[in-house]
Amino acid sequence: MKILITGSLGFIATNLILYLSKNQNYKIVGVDSGISGAKNQKFTMDICKHNFFNICEKEKLCKLLHNVDIVVHLAAKGNVIESIKSPILNFENNVTSTLNLLECMREMNVKKLIFSSTGGALMGNSLSPVNEYSTPKPISPYGASKLSCEGYISSYAESFNIKSIILRFGNVYGPFSLHKSGVFNKWIFSALTNQPLIIFGNGSSTRDYIHVEDLCKGIKLAIKHLKSENSEKLDIFHLANNNEISLNNLAEVLSKVHGESLKINYLQSRIGEVHRNFADISKAIEILGFKPEIPLDEGLKKVYKWFKENGCIK
Amino acid sequence: MKILITGSLGFIATNLILYLSKNQNYKIVGVDSGISGAKNQKFTMDICKHNFFNICEKEKLCKLLHNVDIVVHLAAKGNVIESIKSPILNFENNVTSTLNLLECMREMNVKKLIFSSTGGALMGNSLSPVNEYSTPKPISPYGASKLSCEGYISSYAESFNIKSIILRFGNVYGPFSLHKSGVFNKWIFSALTNQPLIIFGNGSSTRDYIHVEDLCKGIKLAIKHLKSENSEKLDIFHLANNNEISLNNLAEVLSKVHGESLKINYLQSRIGEVHRNFADISKAIEILGFKPEIPLDEGLKKVYKWFKENGCIK
Repeated sequence: MKILITGSLGFIATNLILYLSKNQNYKIVGVDSGISGAKNQKFTMDICKHNFFNICEKEKLCKLLHNVDIVVHLAAKGNVIESIKSPILNFENNVTSTLNLLECMREMNVKKLIFSSTGGALMGNSLSPVNEYSTPKPISPYGASKLSCEGYISSYAESFNIKSIILRFGNVYGPFSLHKSGVFNKWIFSALTNQPLIIFGNGSSTRDYIHVEDLCKGIKLAIKHLKSENSEKLDIFHLANNNEISLNNLAEVLSKVHGESLKINYLQSRIGEVHRNFADISKAIEILGFKPEIPLDEGLKKVYKWFKENGCIK
Repeated sequence: MKILITGSLGFIATNLILYLSKNQNYKIVGVDSGISGAKNQKFTMDICKHNFFNICEKEKLCKLLHNVDIVVHLAAKGNVIESIKSPILNFENNVTSTLNLLECMREMNVKKLIFSSTGGALMGNSLSPVNEYSTPKPISPYGASKLSCEGYISSYAESFNIKSIILRFGNVYGPFSLHKSGVFNKWIFSALTNQPLIIFGNGSSTRDYIHVEDLCKGIKLAIKHLKSENSEKLDIFHLANNNEISLNNLAEVLSKVHGESLKINYLQSRIGEVHRNFADISKAIEILGFKPEIPLDEGLKKVYKWFKENGCIK
């Protein structure tokens, strides 16, 4: 089976390529703009041919889609705060590009797609825990961009028979994420360089952190499900850890891993950031057989160690 | 109060301008590409200054937004079948343009927006009757385009304080719609020219037809609500007639109006078209005081007469 991964130098893609390459049945090719995850290339270049262009380039993308069975579409600009600063840039990178991918898949007769969406930003401040039946209500342009992509994927599934699975990720953490700037990474960097942790708001905001290894297992299960005859034209699953934790509690867990109490600077909360991000993952458990196995404290310990050994570029 | 109406030569806009102009408190300006509704200009040119450009043109749009209080955004490509033929064209006309409008509003500090969305195409084949808590699942690129717009409007309401009301219209019919090609218009034309009615599918598909006069009352109520302090940052209302009718039944009603039984040609159903379009309008009734008053048979009679007197250009 030939799989095309977009955003193939990214944090999740790097982990996914390493994880999927354990199975000899997958032939993996990648496409990446080469902008943000460039330093990850060395980790996967022996097992994946990375192609460097923007997926808005139709001709190149169509050529690359030749004989591809499944596209795992991970390429995106994922930063909420940046999307508020530059909504159009985020729109072009997330929505215009995804629609171009769908058009190219249609043209090249590639009929299976897995898409990385988001639980939190898509739902905004809907009542938690959210699930696949909750009503999306994005509060940031980034969240809106993912909803737009979901809508187009839904319509292409029905109108053009591109069978798709939308996976709405919780907050993903793990190795090969040095170029990412989420709370998790920023804090590990702060701890390693003896700087205070910064919390926007009073720290009662919650997140649902899933280790990238658990997430990759979920993506692999989705690939398997998409290939089976039982799967729907379009299916949606939330993939998270089923463990809601406040930023204040996360700081405590990190302090324990670090070995001493970390100082916190509380700053004003920022627009666009959701108060809670917590998903009910029952559907993924039931239908995909998904089961996150890495507890947060254990995962944080591993990632802290990985960051220490691999340097921080923040 | 200064209102900017986009798509100001369109079917709904023409009716809305005539309806709102009864109230001296509104100063109405319009913008239109001049492409599809050009023949409507004569009906409103004395009461509304129409500006002719594409709303993707940022500089012109910003200039026009100076001192505007409320934007009523009606400009869109609304045809499902055309959106399947040309998804990108539909995307640029509906989504890219709406995001540009939002960016211009942000820049020009215009803080109130009413947006014309759709009940049917947005919801796809979700269980009817749909309401504001139903989960959108578009099955055509047109439906996806409206979901994308709704998502961006939601995010701009929260991130940039552009207070908005999204109105999800049922199937709207009425005068000044000669350039439209929905079932309703095509059939009246067929009846007037002694041609058979064409039904895609077996005629059991349903629609929820609202007369444009009732719809305009709903839009006016939404304008009033948006100005009040009780309104939310973002609110969504379905505006329809609360009367689900099958295509076969619609053909019977038209036959009665026409005075003799009309022949029907049944053709294969088309992808992208929803099976049912029926909305629960309780929320609009309760919060806006909305109340559709024109029964379908009476409305159809009026529109049939209007078409007869004003000629058909199909």
